[in-house]
Amino acid sequence: MNREKDLPTLYWKNHTLYLIDQRYLPGRIEYRICRSCPDVADSIKEMTVRGAPAIGISAAFGLVIEAGSALKSGLSTEKMIEKITLAGAELIKARPTAVNLAWGVERMLRLAAVNSKLPAQELLNRLEEEALAIYEEDVRNNRLIGRFGAELVPDQANILTHCNAGALATGGYGTALGVVRAACEEGKQIHVYIDETRPLLQGARLTAFELYHEGIAATLITDNAAGYLMALGKIDLIVVGADRIAANGDAANKIGTYGLAVLARYHQIPFYVAAPLSTIDRDLACGSGIVIEERCLTEVTHLEQCRVTVAGIKAFNPAFDVTPAGLISAIITEKGVIRQPAAEKIAALFTA
Amino acid sequence: MNREKDLPTLYWKNHTLYLIDQRYLPGRIEYRICRSCPDVADSIKEMTVRGAPAIGISAAFGLVIEAGSALKSGLSTEKMIEKITLAGAELIKARPTAVNLAWGVERMLRLAAVNSKLPAQELLNRLEEEALAIYEEDVRNNRLIGRFGAELVPDQANILTHCNAGALATGGYGTALGVVRAACEEGKQIHVYIDETRPLLQGARLTAFELYHEGIAATLITDNAAGYLMALGKIDLIVVGADRIAANGDAANKIGTYGLAVLARYHQIPFYVAAPLSTIDRDLACGSGIVIEERCLTEVTHLEQCRVTVAGIKAFNPAFDVTPAGLISAIITEKGVIRQPAAEKIAALFTA
Repeated sequence: MNREKDLPTLYWKNHTLYLIDQRYLPGRIEYRICRSCPDVADSIKEMTVRGAPAIGISAAFGLVIEAGSALKSGLSTEKMIEKITLAGAELIKARPTAVNLAWGVERMLRLAAVNSKLPAQELLNRLEEEALAIYEEDVRNNRLIGRFGAELVPDQANILTHCNAGALATGGYGTALGVVRAACEEGKQIHVYIDETRPLLQGARLTAFELYHEGIAATLITDNAAGYLMALGKIDLIVVGADRIAANGDAANKIGTYGLAVLARYHQIPFYVAAPLSTIDRDLACGSGIVIEERCLTEVTHLEQCRVTVAGIKAFNPAFDVTPAGLISAIITEKGVIRQPAAEKIAALFTA
Repeated sequence: MNREKDLPTLYWKNHTLYLIDQRYLPGRIEYRICRSCPDVADSIKEMTVRGAPAIGISAAFGLVIEAGSALKSGLSTEKMIEKITLAGAELIKARPTAVNLAWGVERMLRLAAVNSKLPAQELLNRLEEEALAIYEEDVRNNRLIGRFGAELVPDQANILTHCNAGALATGGYGTALGVVRAACEEGKQIHVYIDETRPLLQGARLTAFELYHEGIAATLITDNAAGYLMALGKIDLIVVGADRIAANGDAANKIGTYGLAVLARYHQIPFYVAAPLSTIDRDLACGSGIVIEERCLTEVTHLEQCRVTVAGIKAFNPAFDVTPAGLISAIITEKGVIRQPAAEKIAALFTA
């Protein structure tokens, strides 16, 4: 099976968005069908679709669906724009940390604003083209990220990754896993250690699934084992994705990433963040402004439906943490690699 | 409910060892009845009983059971000693990392050697007294560890702990949790963050259970969240137990402990190891000689009986890691606190 081709993260057909339901992978393969924008918002909220780039793309298609239903109701272009503006605000609320969600919505609304004089049907066509462009650009950008990142990967490297920044987190190919894939495509012998990534086990469920089906050598570990492997000298580099990167390079990513970055510094192991420019929030000077989503406590207190701890115990379940730029060896983008990330270097990418 | 009193970790009655089955806590409360020494070995292997001191005590009782069955078979003192020597070797093999297991067995065999001229019934009595003494000493030592450790705990402290070094890991009271208990008994306001401790979730299942029933304020987190809490300034100190401490102070403990120690150093948070002298392996110069147990891979690939990752993926499941003495602010023992542990200071404790 070519997983990525046969089981795409998402696809668009007859004005409907199909999302592979990532809550059930790898045990059950099922597509969730989104026929309305609230369907898309719920899918993002409930993590049917997750990964910063993938939720940005999904949100864009959500607005196309909303525009389509406005057209069906016979609304004017102006009303259509009003509807998608409201729907966009709802989509952005679905999850607070990944900036790609807002980025995708804003890009669509900007296009609508520019084309506000077109007839409604024409605007709808433009919106659909734009969502497809966002989707295709994402895959293209990931391939570029992969190519730039692969230069940082030595042959025979043991790579540690956390969570899933793979094809499933994006339109395809992946950011952190894009780097792994590109290095493999260049003929390098690579082995990946996969953090299982509690609480939702995206490493065990999604990254292991992707790498196994791609035939890339990989070993699953508990998050607790990462430090031990570094102490044993078994990790050559770490690469992760990001959900929001501040203008100075501070990067929010799945909870546990920060701990890995500290461990990497202690062991003098390169720590890389792979993400498209759409993950960079230029309005945010530094990471302290990033809102950290806190998710349902049952993600910690229960496994599947089964309580694993004593009833009544308090819990705390932050979904992300922030790694300061000073702990990041380089950010790998589609425009190239920013070593020792800092505000000026990041700003320069946007004008390049 | 007074959990520790009403539900002891283990008890000895009519030449039978009763072990609370820690695999099923807190969901199901069940005692496993050990009527033979292989029952005890299996209970250690399968982690019905776990925690370095608790398995040392259990092994001692295992040898009493073995001696009792030798007596029943009408064997001589000499044959009884032969039988318990063989049984002791089997017990030690049950788990490789915690030294208390070997310590308990050796202490019992030393006693047998000294009393090898006694009639078999008399030797059996002495062995039973010795096992009970090991048990009672452990609880007494834990109270001393608690008292010494409490001096290191400021009022209003937020304490992070990993795995379970509580009453359930010992004869009672606990080592790391003994420090927490003693600080609370002194009237200090304490709050504990509990690492859930993948893969077997001893934090979620056992530590949360103990602290909740004792009314000590506690919050359960994923292991991944520990670094984030430290970055937020929410952790004042870390205290953990140990399974084996080398002569120089390097300490093996549950996988993930080493990562916490590195994070503690980075954030300048005190990192304490609480353990009785029986956990110190004076024959081992440093931690690199400690055998790290690797456990069944289904602990990582499955939750309960359910596979969470793709079939066929490789996994790695070390149960412990080693924290070098240089990362340990102090080792808390029943003979006092060793700050900045080093070989001479540790050796001095044994002659004091």
